[in-house]
Amino acid sequence: MPLVYVTRKSHFNAAHRLHNPSKSDEWNRATFGKCNSPNWHGHNYELEVTVVGEPNPETGYVMDLADLQKIIQERVIDLCDHSNLNLDVPFLKGVIPSSENLVVAFWNQMEPHIKGGKLTSIKLFETARNVVEYRGNL
Amino acid sequence: MPLVYVTRKSHFNAAHRLHNPSKSDEWNRATFGKCNSPNWHGHNYELEVTVVGEPNPETGYVMDLADLQKIIQERVIDLCDHSNLNLDVPFLKGVIPSSENLVVAFWNQMEPHIKGGKLTSIKLFETARNVVEYRGNL
Amino acid sequence: MPLVYVTRKSHFNAAHRLHNPSKSDEWNRATFGKCNSPNWHGHNYELEVTVVGEPNPETGYVMDLADLQKIIQERVIDLCDHSNLNLDVPFLKGVIPSSENLVVAFWNQMEPHIKGGKLTSIKLFETARNVVEYRGNL
Amino acid sequence: MPLVYVTRKSHFNAAHRLHNPSKSDEWNRATFGKCNSPNWHGHNYELEVTVVGEPNPETGYVMDLADLQKIIQERVIDLCDHSNLNLDVPFLKGVIPSSENLVVAFWNQMEPHIKGGKLTSIKLFETARNVVEYRGNL
Amino acid sequence: MPLVYVTRKSHFNAAHRLHNPSKSDEWNRATFGKCNSPNWHGHNYELEVTVVGEPNPETGYVMDLADLQKIIQERVIDLCDHSNLNLDVPFLKGVIPSSENLVVAFWNQMEPHIKGGKLTSIKLFETARNVVEYRGNL
Amino acid sequence: MPLVYVTRKSHFNAAHRLHNPSKSDEWNRATFGKCNSPNWHGHNYELEVTVVGEPNPETGYVMDLADLQKIIQERVIDLCDHSNLNLDVPFLKGVIPSSENLVVAFWNQMEPHIKGGKLTSIKLFETARNVVEYRGNL
Repeated sequence: MPLVYVTRKSHFNAAHRLHNPSKSDEWNRATFGKCNSPNWHGHNYELEVTVVGEPNPETGYVMDLADLQKIIQERVIDLCDHSNLNLDVPFLKGVIPSSENLVVAFWNQMEPHIKGGKLTSIKLFETARNVVEYRGNL
Repeated sequence: MPLVYVTRKSHFNAAHRLHNPSKSDEWNRATFGKCNSPNWHGHNYELEVTVVGEPNPETGYVMDLADLQKIIQERVIDLCDHSNLNLDVPFLKGVIPSSENLVVAFWNQMEPHIKGGKLTSIKLFETARNVVEYRGNL
Repeated sequence: MPLVYVTRKSHFNAAHRLHNPSKSDEWNRATFGKCNSPNWHGHNYELEVTVVGEPNPETGYVMDLADLQKIIQERVIDLCDHSNLNLDVPFLKGVIPSSENLVVAFWNQMEPHIKGGKLTSIKLFETARNVVEYRGNL
Repeated sequence: MPLVYVTRKSHFNAAHRLHNPSKSDEWNRATFGKCNSPNWHGHNYELEVTVVGEPNPETGYVMDLADLQKIIQERVIDLCDHSNLNLDVPFLKGVIPSSENLVVAFWNQMEPHIKGGKLTSIKLFETARNVVEYRGNL
Repeated sequence: MPLVYVTRKSHFNAAHRLHNPSKSDEWNRATFGKCNSPNWHGHNYELEVTVVGEPNPETGYVMDLADLQKIIQERVIDLCDHSNLNLDVPFLKGVIPSSENLVVAFWNQMEPHIKGGKLTSIKLFETARNVVEYRGNL
Repeated sequence: MPLVYVTRKSHFNAAHRLHNPSKSDEWNRATFGKCNSPNWHGHNYELEVTVVGEPNPETGYVMDLADLQKIIQERVIDLCDHSNLNLDVPFLKGVIPSSENLVVAFWNQMEPHIKGGKLTSIKLFETARNVVEYRGNL
């Protein structure tokens, strides 16, 4: 049976700051540069979630993308959109909100809720030129 | 010898409707929602075909992209562009034209004709936010 | 006081066919080519609506874009999305659904409902390469 | 002599919040919704600056785009990038950082420094779907 | 009767170099920097041609975009694509191929051949961040 | 520990020509068509470099993208931007500058300098529709 990869793209806007509170301000400025800017900055994040599975012969769907969008919306977007990723998001508590850490955290938020297909990739565009992808713990 | 992946992007416009004729109208409406709309709707489909192989030392090409474009054109675009995917396309007869089923059908249409490189991925953008990929029967 | 132009982009998917029922099939085929294809084809339409006005000093808004989006949604998208533009849309009855005719019809649908700002442009992308704009009856 | 319009696109990332400090928190929440979110949110802003003039016959340039980019960089980007638009930017002090107010403020920042051509438009993409343009005080 | 603006986007790839042969090499290097690089460089040019007119009530078209594309193809693309803009294009002989000079030259190439609608804008994207537009000799 | 893929996108403009000097002019014209055009043509190349590794718990970074950008800049962009890929670039001497050969050459230029993460993919967009990827010598 054929395996097909299905991707849904979403977006959200958020503020963040790269800062490791266990380190000195000096270390943070030297390490993160302007991404450590004290009063935050922000991004239009583009999020791509990919699920793989065999299309159901009755529907031609690996998974109804409306169901996938609902999981993305409830588990990630509703919690992150128009938020401060350092301060406002319970599942990011204690996480430095680098794109790398965000995709791993998003995976853990969504993976248990995806039925039918198997989550196989989460991509996050922080800017048009910086992209991060997590493919699970291989 | 290095293996290189070469991708050619094309597009076509078509009408379709998600509908399983072996099921009731009620089941179809409940399952496919507005994608089951009786008088069709349509898309600007973007199609990405990827071939992998070793570049020929005389040309630097895995495969002349003009040859690949000719296969995409003759085997898929000429048959699907400005068509109704449920009614007009012989190789889709009996297929529910979900993006998942389309990429598998497109693979079967093109794969036997690709020489030099090996077909390795077909991606189909149904909208800017919904994408499907088939990588063959692994 | 400064005049500022505010644009909201939306999209919808629809089927259509270019066909003038007062003319022969031959004339239609010769005039519209594959856009006259009998079983319809379709597009992902991108719609840009621009309003001009003075920003309100209390809000910094020419017009709340959520209000503009609501008008676009109720007057155009809800009626056209996943529809057949020749058969399903009351306000397009008797209209050949060329992009030119669509932007004029969309203007007439939305213009009376826009408050605060003044509608100044409607752009419609039928494909990535074909775009039409109406700026009102100057 | 021909008049030609020359546009340079740039971008910056910033945090902001829509909030009118002369109004109650309730009014702000009701007016701005999630854009009033207390701990800020942010955007990847895309900025387009257009200058019009006659091309210099010796260079074929209306204006060297490197000179225009320098003005955009020094007068806007260096002050706004990775900043909080409500707190960190001297020329936005007392301004509600709506896109409408930003384009007018950016105009006033840059217009006196542009030589050769005449500033004719500033466009700001707050998101891929929300765009604002200022064409000066006509 | 409504006036509608119709735009067709095309592209071509070409080499060029900014160089004024009536000036010294030193002046050229100081004025054009790396755009004066002696062995040429090149671009994927995106070209947008806009025509304005009243839609024909029999067709809903301001102008058949296939006819417009044919003019763009024959008068500009066939002569410029995969060419060296300084050496190979008869209608650019003696022109410094800055984007400003190109859009004016393209206007003169195409304007006499456009029937039905009136040419109103030519836009040329030299890169994703540098754009030039000519609206005719107002 | 999670493996995360980090991608940085860059661009450069260059002239080139597909030509195998060990073959006749006739063979070259027949093989490469207009890509063999004698006076060169050119492209806006988009380059995507992907590195994989475990995020550093102190920074949340696989690799500081500023460090990756520096390697891309120094090893590829500074040598190729506004150049003629057949004539001007020492590391491309004797290489037919097809996209396939370019990605392999870029890999060899950058791979030894990347620390922390492991280079895993280089993608090159020659045009919006033609893309090539190298994933190393598997």
